Amino acid sequence: MLILAMESSAKPVSVAVYETSGVESLGSVGPADTVAGESYGRLLGQYFQNNGFSHSRTLMSMAESLLDNLGLKPVDINLVAVASGPGSFTGVRIGVSAAKGFAWGLDIPVCGVSTLEAMAMQTSEADAIICPVMDARREQVYNALFRWQDGGLERLCDDRAISIKELAADLNAWDICSAENPAMLVGDGVDVCMSGFAALDSSASFERYTAAELVRFQTAFGVALAAVHKKPVLATDLEPSYLRPSQAERERSQSSNNSSS
Amino acid sequence: MLILAMESSAKPVSVAVYETSGVESLGSVGPADTVAGESYGRLLGQYFQNNGFSHSRTLMSMAESLLDNLGLKPVDINLVAVASGPGSFTGVRIGVSAAKGFAWGLDIPVCGVSTLEAMAMQTSEADAIICPVMDARREQVYNALFRWQDGGLERLCDDRAISIKELAADLNAWDICSAENPAMLVGDGVDVCMSGFAALDSSASFERYTAAELVRFQTAFGVALAAVHKKPVLATDLEPSYLRPSQAERERSQSSNNSSS
Repeated sequence: MLILAMESSAKPVSVAVYETSGVESLGSVGPADTVAGESYGRLLGQYFQNNGFSHSRTLMSMAESLLDNLGLKPVDINLVAVASGPGSFTGVRIGVSAAKGFAWGLDIPVCGVSTLEAMAMQTSEADAIICPVMDARREQVYNALFRWQDGGLERLCDDRAISIKELAADLNAWDICSAENPAMLVGDGVDVCMSGFAALDSSASFERYTAAELVRFQTAFGVALAAVHKKPVLATDLEPSYLRPSQAERERSQSSNNSSS
Repeated sequence: MLILAMESSAKPVSVAVYETSGVESLGSVGPADTVAGESYGRLLGQYFQNNGFSHSRTLMSMAESLLDNLGLKPVDINLVAVASGPGSFTGVRIGVSAAKGFAWGLDIPVCGVSTLEAMAMQTSEADAIICPVMDARREQVYNALFRWQDGGLERLCDDRAISIKELAADLNAWDICSAENPAMLVGDGVDVCMSGFAALDSSASFERYTAAELVRFQTAFGVALAAVHKKPVLATDLEPSYLRPSQAERERSQSSNNSSS
């Protein structure tokens, strides 16, 4: 089975083609694909870009080039996977819209995965709590916590928009981020977290484990891995997951509150 | 400074554009670029493919697409970096030839880096000996050993073609690959090494640490990182580094030995 995966939830943008081994059925339950191995599937190609160009300009042209270079046509693709959020509202909208359009046109299923889970899937740190952090502005990060267990990725909490202070308290409560029980921070929120943690009057020792640059940022490769065992949906049913209301929604809600008061 | 990096030494092929921070001069000596950080430079884009297509067909078309999607022209590139071996003879020849041609045409310098060093540069495992292994057939691997030290990559031995048995003995002699002193194996030789180690009557415990798939195979990203502090050369002076004579050379040498005997 061939998966075309798309990631455009933040500044980097990427597309990947991932070939599963074919033994699993769509939406089956099983151990997650081991990131390190080829036994369960393999990355046929990935096109990654991080220069700040508009995703609406780059995403589809990257996908077209990648398929072409792999000797594939759109009809060869069996499933579209996309990071459906959280992330930049515009970025998530572009990715989800492109995935929906591609899947709808070809009448193939689509699978929206959590951006944070996809980031965690890229890592293969056996003995660390995986802590993806995306800069969500307004002193918040998008975050969830994961752990590798028996070759699969175990989710420890729901995706959330959380302040740096709350995240620090949460990590303290879990007694992680110490030398004995390290957390691996990944994502574009690492720097804002580390300076936030340092500024807090906290006695906890926050060990910083960051992954190599290729693994640190969200990629379509992680999206494909996260999609392998998820249940896909019809293109028309795919919804983005913003976790927070958009600025436009906040302003509309504020103005209706003001006018009703 | 913009580096165009190429990697075609084995089955995967990739091109990358890496932007250095500009403070370093070509060939200067200093701590290696920290793989995890953006402080020293950043990956603007990478195009990676691993479907077994001929590199002579894919490499330049990937480079063209990447530059185009990044809004760059060949004249914007300041340095070409290439994995100059060891590796597949054909793959290395294609990469080195493409790099030489591109650099010569634009009159820019070129930097050939060890494939193994480039693979090691992709990792950021602080407490492991980095042990890249490429399957060299005939029960050998191409290998070198590295260690991260103060943010830089320290080379512990020269690139070599070595039998699995010799590598096992060497790792034992270094007292690495134990739980206390782990080695991180990366590359397409991991599986052949692990089964070779298992078959040896060895009391050593070989801990296997493999990196995530994106970091496990050689990429142009690693080539760019390895090139940052290397002294570049003129395009005409770049030579591949095969470590072993090619099959044609072996046969010629054998036939001349036979005829002289």
